[in-house]
Amino acid sequence: MDNYLAFFTLLGSILALGFALLQAKKVLKFDEGNERMIKLSGSIREGAMAYLTRQYKILIIFFVGMFVVLSIMAFFKLLTPFVPFAFITGGFFSGLSGFVGMNIATRANARTANACQEGLNKGLRVAFSAGSVMGFTVVGLGLLDISIWYLLLKMVFHLNLSDLTTTMLTFGMGASSMALFARVGGGIYTKAADVGADLVGKVEAGIPEDDPRNPAVIADNVGDNVGDVAGMGADLYESYVGSILSSCALGVIAFENSAALQVSAVAIPMAMAAIGVVASIFCTFLVKTGESIDQATLLKALRRGTNTSAISIAVIAFPLVYFVFGMEYIGLYFAIIAGLIAGVLIGFFTEYFTSDTYKPTQKLAGQSETGAATIIIGGVSLGMVSVAAPIVIIAICVMLAYGLAGGFSNGALGLYGIALAAVGMLSTLGITLATDAYGPIADNAGGIAEMAGLDPEVRRRTDALDSLGNTTAATGKGFAIGSAALTALALIASYVSKVQQIGGDSIKLDMSVMNPAVLVGIFIGASLPFIFAAMTMDSVGKAAQSIVVEVRRQFHEIKGLMEGEADPDYTKCVDLCTKASLHEMISPTVLAIVTPIVVGLVLGYNGVIGLLAGATATGFLLAIFMANSGGAWDNAKKYIEAGHFGGKGSDAHKAGVVGDTVGDPFKDTSGPSINILIKLLSMVSIVFAGLVVTFHIF
Amino acid sequence: MDNYLAFFTLLGSILALGFALLQAKKVLKFDEGNERMIKLSGSIREGAMAYLTRQYKILIIFFVGMFVVLSIMAFFKLLTPFVPFAFITGGFFSGLSGFVGMNIATRANARTANACQEGLNKGLRVAFSAGSVMGFTVVGLGLLDISIWYLLLKMVFHLNLSDLTTTMLTFGMGASSMALFARVGGGIYTKAADVGADLVGKVEAGIPEDDPRNPAVIADNVGDNVGDVAGMGADLYESYVGSILSSCALGVIAFENSAALQVSAVAIPMAMAAIGVVASIFCTFLVKTGESIDQATLLKALRRGTNTSAISIAVIAFPLVYFVFGMEYIGLYFAIIAGLIAGVLIGFFTEYFTSDTYKPTQKLAGQSETGAATIIIGGVSLGMVSVAAPIVIIAICVMLAYGLAGGFSNGALGLYGIALAAVGMLSTLGITLATDAYGPIADNAGGIAEMAGLDPEVRRRTDALDSLGNTTAATGKGFAIGSAALTALALIASYVSKVQQIGGDSIKLDMSVMNPAVLVGIFIGASLPFIFAAMTMDSVGKAAQSIVVEVRRQFHEIKGLMEGEADPDYTKCVDLCTKASLHEMISPTVLAIVTPIVVGLVLGYNGVIGLLAGATATGFLLAIFMANSGGAWDNAKKYIEAGHFGGKGSDAHKAGVVGDTVGDPFKDTSGPSINILIKLLSMVSIVFAGLVVTFHIF
Repeated sequence: MDNYLAFFTLLGSILALGFALLQAKKVLKFDEGNERMIKLSGSIREGAMAYLTRQYKILIIFFVGMFVVLSIMAFFKLLTPFVPFAFITGGFFSGLSGFVGMNIATRANARTANACQEGLNKGLRVAFSAGSVMGFTVVGLGLLDISIWYLLLKMVFHLNLSDLTTTMLTFGMGASSMALFARVGGGIYTKAADVGADLVGKVEAGIPEDDPRNPAVIADNVGDNVGDVAGMGADLYESYVGSILSSCALGVIAFENSAALQVSAVAIPMAMAAIGVVASIFCTFLVKTGESIDQATLLKALRRGTNTSAISIAVIAFPLVYFVFGMEYIGLYFAIIAGLIAGVLIGFFTEYFTSDTYKPTQKLAGQSETGAATIIIGGVSLGMVSVAAPIVIIAICVMLAYGLAGGFSNGALGLYGIALAAVGMLSTLGITLATDAYGPIADNAGGIAEMAGLDPEVRRRTDALDSLGNTTAATGKGFAIGSAALTALALIASYVSKVQQIGGDSIKLDMSVMNPAVLVGIFIGASLPFIFAAMTMDSVGKAAQSIVVEVRRQFHEIKGLMEGEADPDYTKCVDLCTKASLHEMISPTVLAIVTPIVVGLVLGYNGVIGLLAGATATGFLLAIFMANSGGAWDNAKKYIEAGHFGGKGSDAHKAGVVGDTVGDPFKDTSGPSINILIKLLSMVSIVFAGLVVTFHIF
Repeated sequence: MDNYLAFFTLLGSILALGFALLQAKKVLKFDEGNERMIKLSGSIREGAMAYLTRQYKILIIFFVGMFVVLSIMAFFKLLTPFVPFAFITGGFFSGLSGFVGMNIATRANARTANACQEGLNKGLRVAFSAGSVMGFTVVGLGLLDISIWYLLLKMVFHLNLSDLTTTMLTFGMGASSMALFARVGGGIYTKAADVGADLVGKVEAGIPEDDPRNPAVIADNVGDNVGDVAGMGADLYESYVGSILSSCALGVIAFENSAALQVSAVAIPMAMAAIGVVASIFCTFLVKTGESIDQATLLKALRRGTNTSAISIAVIAFPLVYFVFGMEYIGLYFAIIAGLIAGVLIGFFTEYFTSDTYKPTQKLAGQSETGAATIIIGGVSLGMVSVAAPIVIIAICVMLAYGLAGGFSNGALGLYGIALAAVGMLSTLGITLATDAYGPIADNAGGIAEMAGLDPEVRRRTDALDSLGNTTAATGKGFAIGSAALTALALIASYVSKVQQIGGDSIKLDMSVMNPAVLVGIFIGASLPFIFAAMTMDSVGKAAQSIVVEVRRQFHEIKGLMEGEADPDYTKCVDLCTKASLHEMISPTVLAIVTPIVVGLVLGYNGVIGLLAGATATGFLLAIFMANSGGAWDNAKKYIEAGHFGGKGSDAHKAGVVGDTVGDPFKDTSGPSINILIKLLSMVSIVFAGLVVTFHIF
């Protein structure tokens, strides 16, 4: 049965990739609009591609270096020989996901703007179809990577399921490293350009957003693509693959006494993923709208797709688990459902705290009336208090998934249940990612409409789509954070069993929080998300400062620029952002890779376990805090702009702009990168487990 | 020997209290200055006393309520019958420490201003002597409470050392509750008044700080006393007593096989405290300065006192440990020294990140040039990255204290070592607290000098003293946070042994981070400091808003106010602040008391252990982040005011003021309260251990 299973997964992969291809063709059939639009879209694409090319060049050095390190470790039997190759493929597919998604996004931006000339629904269709390309590419490549390796290790190398799943788990490290580079680099790029463009353009020169006279405007639009599209693609590829692989690994451990049940345990996460693909594909056809720009109506159109998809999966999963495992283990089904529901709930609370249709953000907007200081204090406080709901949801989800799976009589089963909850949460990824990735496309379309001087009605339509994108992005972040926490917990469990597997009887596991190594590990781990967030925020600041200087220079030196008689030098800003962000992405990622190794060598595997637990807990909290504070500030500003508390140009609005600018690196650079950080820490620990078990001080 | 010991501690207590009395008499001998100064000082004292009286009235209800709850629990044998009484005395002495400190501080403010008319050194002597009253009252009352209970339980009730120490530990809960109320209430008061006065006075009306025309100016000065003096006194009383009691309790456990060694184990922390008193008293005489207002010279004057005190204690502790324990356990001495050094190092790094004589704050000041948003991002990033050094220091300190005490062969000894490290860190409290408490007195003196229209030279002198106070306050915060983390760890260990003691063989301790109850506990615990910080910041915002409205009203309605022809209604603002802060202090404290009980009833004692570990780790990090961000913003503003980046009135300065205002609740309300929070959580858990062991779901 287990070979059929891999083919079934492969089939899911082919379906997803085929659907992505069809959607891409559909998007490309649309017209790009007039010459100016084509040129603008071309410039954005060029800038984005130039960035990615240079990023990949740097990353090749990193990946080759790591390949050599891992090969040496494999030579000394600290790793299986497959790991270096698995590492490379994980990184490659993660990068490819981002590349494909960004490629189509940069081709869809002008097409969306042009479609909006004809109507809102057409614009939504183009942007959403392009978003689907991204969504299904991520899912498809993830399943492709998994099924090929599965078949290879099983049929060519004849590994048993236990070795097979633990080997496959390690290619998560490649995917995570790639994702972290992409998220951090892209995140710095997009916010440096955004902040830089705003600080000089909007605040100092007083020209509107996306004004073609602003030298940083193309860089700003490039940023949406390299950060919000390519970065997010790599990120979610990693989440998706990580959740499936950790479930497989824990499933094999949970059923170590029965080879048949081990096969079933591996079957469930893979089949869930494949089913998710099918359900998501069907549900994309439910996404359509009328011509009203009312946000509630638009949101309903998208939610129809995602909710139907979630419900279908919940329904199909029951017979699946029953068929594979029988009634005895039906609790596993409820573990999956716990994850699915937790994801939806976290998404809802994210929306509640960040959308201006709810009280918290409206109240925050009101705090702008007493100045920038009070809206900042209010936003920080809003973000910090907003962790309460997700933490309770995750707490309940973990206890339920663990208990329902049977963890209280067999701990390993419980951990498998937690991993399955993450799979359940991410099973709708194809379509949720589509609704998420469409946002930056609509944002870009708005920019092009503005720069090409299209009818204001077009901009109104793209703005409606963009604004909706902010809401779906918030929900998407909720999913990403929630699944990251669950997957990270599953990975800690995988680490523990990896250590036991490597060290055998020599292992003295003492994971008690009263073991000082664990305790100190928790402290150090808990500090990592703080330090990491500080580094990435600082990088945005530095990169933005260089843009500010350049934009000021161009305003001064290029004659006739402000009068619209001369063109600014867009490429200079694009170039600066590229250089700065690529330079700045290195140290945070190195921190994430080096710390667990160093801590392991000093404090041993018990210390590493503490480190991972500490990092997961604070990482989860800090990610939610930063994402929600940032989202709320953004929407509070929009709420003021919509005419509340004095509207555009008032003192309250100025305070709102300060809040929004502070929120930019919070929500788009540091916050989302923390999700990847916590998983990369676990992945690195797993890959270097052999080294740490062999050498450590305490 | 053990009775002599208690008498020795009692002697230390009497020495400390006697010295405090002498210092108080010395302060009162100085002249209060002219009539206006006497009147101003009187108004401040009146406001402060009115606040404390009303606070105590509310707290009596709380303490009586808790007394009843605890008595009922004692009736059902869930507690020993001493606990309700111990709870009350802990709260009483904690409150008394704050009361005495504040009483003398409000009498020393005008005297300091008056002394500054004659010279800087005289001003320093008055303010520092008043600070010493506070320092030695805290230490003296702490030792008094400990020695009286010790003698009572030992000689009247004949408890054995094990029951005695665990009983005494529970009066920490009274002290912690009192401290949290005082810190939160006082912190909200002081910042609401400060922010409210600044927002309308400085920003809107354009009048200088401490201008007598500002209706909130007296409330602002009252705030310094109720927050920075009374709040801090209660806070450090709790830290001091907590560290000594947890060491005693863990010492008795560590040496459970030898009654003689148990006595020694209890002797060490008590004797260390008594020695600390003597060393601190002598070193206060080293604090004097010349007439130069140069900060480095002034700082040297204070540091001469604190450093000599630390070195003397380090020297005397060696023969002490040798005499009490012999060479076999001399490692305990090094555990104490590890704590002492860690405290000094954390203090240094706090100063490094927050003082404008170092790069980080200077760089932060520069970020004001691109506006409020960049200085906010920069400050958040500075605060977050500043956790790195303290976390490494605490990590090394914990490993050293554990290892040197012999933890790797006997875990209980290691935990005793960690507790002793906290005692070592706090042994110099008498004098460090004096250098800390003198700051708000100098601040008040400056306010009085300004309002009474004294010679600008006087204000320059009080400003120099105040500015120095900011630096010592930063160092003091480092100590408070560091010792809180160590004490909290010791309290977790005490909790574990308490649970074992109560439940006996029925206890199934599984403190592994892979136990879902522990894991979920860690997650919930880690979220508490975030939620708590959000609540307290929000309270400051709400209370400040009410002050803003009132100050605006008075500016409008009182004719001739701005021309100096009519007096504002100070008492209205004082009253508003009092009401608001007393109202707002309730919910955060209730959260701290209820959560560990609820989590315990649901997740059991294993869940509580996770909760405490999670809360301690993030609490430590968040406290440092918030204190350092706030301190750096404050000093960055001062750095700009000193003439950098355009100086006073420039755009950079405006941005700096925004940063400072955001930092106010960070550093003076939320940050310092978190230290108490993490200890109160442990204390509540310990007191309610009987309930949780008897009833719990998982």
